[in-house]
Amino acid sequence: MKALVLEEKGRLSVRDYPIVEHMGPYDVTVDVKACGICGSDVHYYTEGAIGDFVVKEPMILGHEAAGVVVAKGEQVTNLEIGDLVCMEPGVPNLQAKQVLEGNYHLDPDISFWATPPIHGCLREQVVHPSRFCFKLPKGVSVQEGAMMEPLATGIEAAKKAQVTPGDTALVVGAGTIGIMVAISCLAAGCSKVFISDVKEEKLAIAASYKNIIPINVANQDLQTTIMAETNNEGVDRLFEASGSPRVYPSFFRCAKRGATVVLVGMMNGTVPLDVALLQVRGLRIETLFRYTNTFDRAVALVANGSIDVNPLISKVFPFEKAVEAYEYAAEGHQDVVKVMIEL
Amino acid sequence: MKALVLEEKGRLSVRDYPIVEHMGPYDVTVDVKACGICGSDVHYYTEGAIGDFVVKEPMILGHEAAGVVVAKGEQVTNLEIGDLVCMEPGVPNLQAKQVLEGNYHLDPDISFWATPPIHGCLREQVVHPSRFCFKLPKGVSVQEGAMMEPLATGIEAAKKAQVTPGDTALVVGAGTIGIMVAISCLAAGCSKVFISDVKEEKLAIAASYKNIIPINVANQDLQTTIMAETNNEGVDRLFEASGSPRVYPSFFRCAKRGATVVLVGMMNGTVPLDVALLQVRGLRIETLFRYTNTFDRAVALVANGSIDVNPLISKVFPFEKAVEAYEYAAEGHQDVVKVMIEL
Amino acid sequence: MKALVLEEKGRLSVRDYPIVEHMGPYDVTVDVKACGICGSDVHYYTEGAIGDFVVKEPMILGHEAAGVVVAKGEQVTNLEIGDLVCMEPGVPNLQAKQVLEGNYHLDPDISFWATPPIHGCLREQVVHPSRFCFKLPKGVSVQEGAMMEPLATGIEAAKKAQVTPGDTALVVGAGTIGIMVAISCLAAGCSKVFISDVKEEKLAIAASYKNIIPINVANQDLQTTIMAETNNEGVDRLFEASGSPRVYPSFFRCAKRGATVVLVGMMNGTVPLDVALLQVRGLRIETLFRYTNTFDRAVALVANGSIDVNPLISKVFPFEKAVEAYEYAAEGHQDVVKVMIEL
Amino acid sequence: MKALVLEEKGRLSVRDYPIVEHMGPYDVTVDVKACGICGSDVHYYTEGAIGDFVVKEPMILGHEAAGVVVAKGEQVTNLEIGDLVCMEPGVPNLQAKQVLEGNYHLDPDISFWATPPIHGCLREQVVHPSRFCFKLPKGVSVQEGAMMEPLATGIEAAKKAQVTPGDTALVVGAGTIGIMVAISCLAAGCSKVFISDVKEEKLAIAASYKNIIPINVANQDLQTTIMAETNNEGVDRLFEASGSPRVYPSFFRCAKRGATVVLVGMMNGTVPLDVALLQVRGLRIETLFRYTNTFDRAVALVANGSIDVNPLISKVFPFEKAVEAYEYAAEGHQDVVKVMIEL
Repeated sequence: MKALVLEEKGRLSVRDYPIVEHMGPYDVTVDVKACGICGSDVHYYTEGAIGDFVVKEPMILGHEAAGVVVAKGEQVTNLEIGDLVCMEPGVPNLQAKQVLEGNYHLDPDISFWATPPIHGCLREQVVHPSRFCFKLPKGVSVQEGAMMEPLATGIEAAKKAQVTPGDTALVVGAGTIGIMVAISCLAAGCSKVFISDVKEEKLAIAASYKNIIPINVANQDLQTTIMAETNNEGVDRLFEASGSPRVYPSFFRCAKRGATVVLVGMMNGTVPLDVALLQVRGLRIETLFRYTNTFDRAVALVANGSIDVNPLISKVFPFEKAVEAYEYAAEGHQDVVKVMIEL
Repeated sequence: MKALVLEEKGRLSVRDYPIVEHMGPYDVTVDVKACGICGSDVHYYTEGAIGDFVVKEPMILGHEAAGVVVAKGEQVTNLEIGDLVCMEPGVPNLQAKQVLEGNYHLDPDISFWATPPIHGCLREQVVHPSRFCFKLPKGVSVQEGAMMEPLATGIEAAKKAQVTPGDTALVVGAGTIGIMVAISCLAAGCSKVFISDVKEEKLAIAASYKNIIPINVANQDLQTTIMAETNNEGVDRLFEASGSPRVYPSFFRCAKRGATVVLVGMMNGTVPLDVALLQVRGLRIETLFRYTNTFDRAVALVANGSIDVNPLISKVFPFEKAVEAYEYAAEGHQDVVKVMIEL
Repeated sequence: MKALVLEEKGRLSVRDYPIVEHMGPYDVTVDVKACGICGSDVHYYTEGAIGDFVVKEPMILGHEAAGVVVAKGEQVTNLEIGDLVCMEPGVPNLQAKQVLEGNYHLDPDISFWATPPIHGCLREQVVHPSRFCFKLPKGVSVQEGAMMEPLATGIEAAKKAQVTPGDTALVVGAGTIGIMVAISCLAAGCSKVFISDVKEEKLAIAASYKNIIPINVANQDLQTTIMAETNNEGVDRLFEASGSPRVYPSFFRCAKRGATVVLVGMMNGTVPLDVALLQVRGLRIETLFRYTNTFDRAVALVANGSIDVNPLISKVFPFEKAVEAYEYAAEGHQDVVKVMIEL
Repeated sequence: MKALVLEEKGRLSVRDYPIVEHMGPYDVTVDVKACGICGSDVHYYTEGAIGDFVVKEPMILGHEAAGVVVAKGEQVTNLEIGDLVCMEPGVPNLQAKQVLEGNYHLDPDISFWATPPIHGCLREQVVHPSRFCFKLPKGVSVQEGAMMEPLATGIEAAKKAQVTPGDTALVVGAGTIGIMVAISCLAAGCSKVFISDVKEEKLAIAASYKNIIPINVANQDLQTTIMAETNNEGVDRLFEASGSPRVYPSFFRCAKRGATVVLVGMMNGTVPLDVALLQVRGLRIETLFRYTNTFDRAVALVANGSIDVNPLISKVFPFEKAVEAYEYAAEGHQDVVKVMIEL
């Protein structure tokens, strides 16, 4: 079938790629209709690796996808042929201990699309477990469906933070994930969400959502601004979504006593942590790694109108121009959030 | 000062009532500007008692109030003279063990407005601890301010339920508190909230909020309807807000496996509980008694537009017609949610 | 193979019973060496049914077992041939939604030993998933191993209660499960555990454990005694483990404000619940249904000496006298906790 | 009255010091009978400051005390004259917002003994709020009573970690606090607790408790040892109690997937944090700052025999030799845990 193949670092092609997938009794076959480009996809394209994950063989990219069910196994009860679905890209080994513990995302042998050597889903068709496919109700488009993966990350962050209605929040970083976290916090009941970045265009997109307040740290001091806006108390929930080590020293100083912090952004290397500062403020720190049982929540909140992801779909390319789409995404336009490919 | 006095069961008057309150260093004096009528106020009026709390002496009614700060003690730092505020009606003894445990609402000696023998606040002026007064930001009216008390109950219910974004909910009972719970659940991220009652007008008011789905149990079976609407799974969060024992048998059968139930409605006597049913479904049950640290959350969510309480303010009477207002409230009009008095 | 078969209500036999079980790659084959008799086993024997579960065909009884691994599938990594193991009797369908949600015990299609029509394990050999077999370390006997199932229930109750070191607890009912809950509470840090029953012998066995305080409610009022022993405050954690409806009215009155209650005992029919009482005390209620991820915890606490189950093994019968063992268990001797069968 | 006064950095004296304390209606007057020496006391003695807290005027040291009630205010209901009590050294302003939020330890204006400019309690008599005094039951000595403060820190750490029965734990640092954390973990149900240090004598004292396993990181690699002892899985609960930045890199590598970490040890400066490592393992991090509502728990667990603090009382000096006691403590003998002064 046709696929977007990362032949090697820096070289992509849309071409026929032979894949034979067995469809088990709990699986469905899905014709992929839309697939977003994630920062990690771009990273594999431009760098050929992320940490220990190195692309050694040609690999199909893409893990943010939606499509239509075209076949189903005999044990599938939650989906019908013809259903539009979005797909959760990581599938654990159900025999893993972490699955029984309710932490299926922590299974060390989880199979995650477009993480070497596992192929991604930017191709005509995929076979996937029905439990990891989620029906898009009437009124939700496949493009919105392809946004569920990053949105699930945002909602997971709000879940981990245990947002309580009326909380204030700070999200550091106004990239795709940062904005997803911010709008998820609003959906979870935050009364206002501050979001910081140095890129004015990104902040403007974020601020187009009501009750999101941008802070451009290129010309505003983060801690000073937050304290001025919160009666000198700080915010209840903090999210680091930039992956930038430089952020850390001022970040924790924006926390109210007793606040919760969620570390969302990944990075190489270490950051300096002022342990005594955390202790005196009585902070709790959660770390984020993907999501569990969150896609259906993302779908429900888009379907009922609580969350609108359309302002974040910046540009859509047809499948035959997928390489161009990746190049466009790799250019890092400041006014671009999500680049998407339609099949 | 002028006050609305329950002289005895069934007899109210607006008259001068001598009250001298000492203003301590952490207190403020507030000119009351608006006060809602609660079901408990009406109950004291018509019955003269609620459970063990019996009205033996003339007592001022009212505990849902907002007003303007006219004086402040020397240690007050969170309020200024001229601020509009709403007021939390229950003040614990700060020396109580429950206060240090974070459960100040459980202090057995809490002083709560309009609970015999404590006078209420439907009078020209009250002295109140500044910690239990909450500034209404620009754009929030005193009438909205007087709605914060029942809204705080709704938000507390959503907090207790630990609503997670995307949850489904069922609220039984579409009275003031039931609707407050329902809109609080939406603010907390519920994707849809079913609300049940037998009164069509109440349900219609509730259903004027987006994503609230009315179920008239006069002509629909609750369990059947919920199961049909939830793929036969049941809902994630359940709230009993009717105080009717008849509700209980079908109520728990609407719960998804692993769901959380919050018992909001109070009642006399007992209800039949099917323990094995709860066990097989793995339910957790929380009980609601007032609120802790919730008024500022209510204010923030009204101020930012997340929650609109105005559709629930059904009729406003001037202070001189306060007795008429109580009679009107006591008549129990089906299209009336909250009756309010302006001073 | 030889098995203890419930031929029909009231008729047991030890006889050859043909069973062919397929051993998959993640399974082990275990020679059963000890198996306890549970109240549910006796109930099936004497009544032929528990609720909707009716014995219609001959069924092998027993679900509290330990044995030795005699064969293992190729994917088994946590066990070796020759290992002594205890076995968790309920195996979910790993494809169930509840498994991914961390609630595998709530899978409605869970396969649980000796629950019609699933055969139990009181037979020479069973095939079982390795993930549900737990190695007994050196020093732990197979008889102790066969006690892990009821102990897991006790530990699960303490987990659900979120026992915090220094809590006080009340366990109503001094049967096997009640005592297991009590000793699990001690292991979890309870400073003292009150246990109530009407049977003096049971209470005496419970009270042989340090810091367990017996209350014979045949001649002591439960609430009065608890209040006298707790400065009139009540206890922090309450466990209903008798399954007797009569207990409920006084039971909740023993709760401290803000306490947690766990409903362990199952029963037919309903109990009268005083909702207002629970609300005024701010109680949280958890319900128990079996256990998740608890057997390894039970094994660890027996292995390190924190919990001693040996005083609860009242009488051991050889396999050939299994029918006699059941009859003995069915007689309900007051000084008997657990009757066990050795193979 | 007589007191141990830190006249200035490096100079102590036992002398008369004039203190007049007002006893309010909720206060008691306590004759101090025993007082432990904490690392912070020694630090003020040798360095004259801890962080921003600088000793500028003569200050009485000591905050780990027990004594006997000799007078009580009229509102005191929980204590009688003659009662032995231990005392919680930090008293919040009850008007603080953090108190109502259940975080009284985070009140920025908390008054804590022997933290400049607040005097400590190593003196003949103190006036203290009755709510912060805890009766020692029969059988608990004043010396044990003076150990409740560091034990409360240990129990608070176990509470924050939400230890579940059967967990494994690692405590880094075998000083007083490290050992207190370790024995609290055992009381909370840990099946085994690894404790690491470079000082063999400290480890030997820790290892005198059953189920505490010492790791001397002077000659054993921490991560290698932990992994070898835990089937390569890591431990469930981790506690950093050394305050040494060098520990951090290997510390987090000992965590099981989904584990909880509590940061107990304070330090100046920052530590390098590998955020991605925490994320991939799905860790939650709690920080410790003193305790809330923990002293009564400490007392209960010592009283019932669950925790024995006597092996940790290394040497007792009479009050007149208090200066000598401080010098002895400052020498840092490796076989010394707690130095205590009797009055």
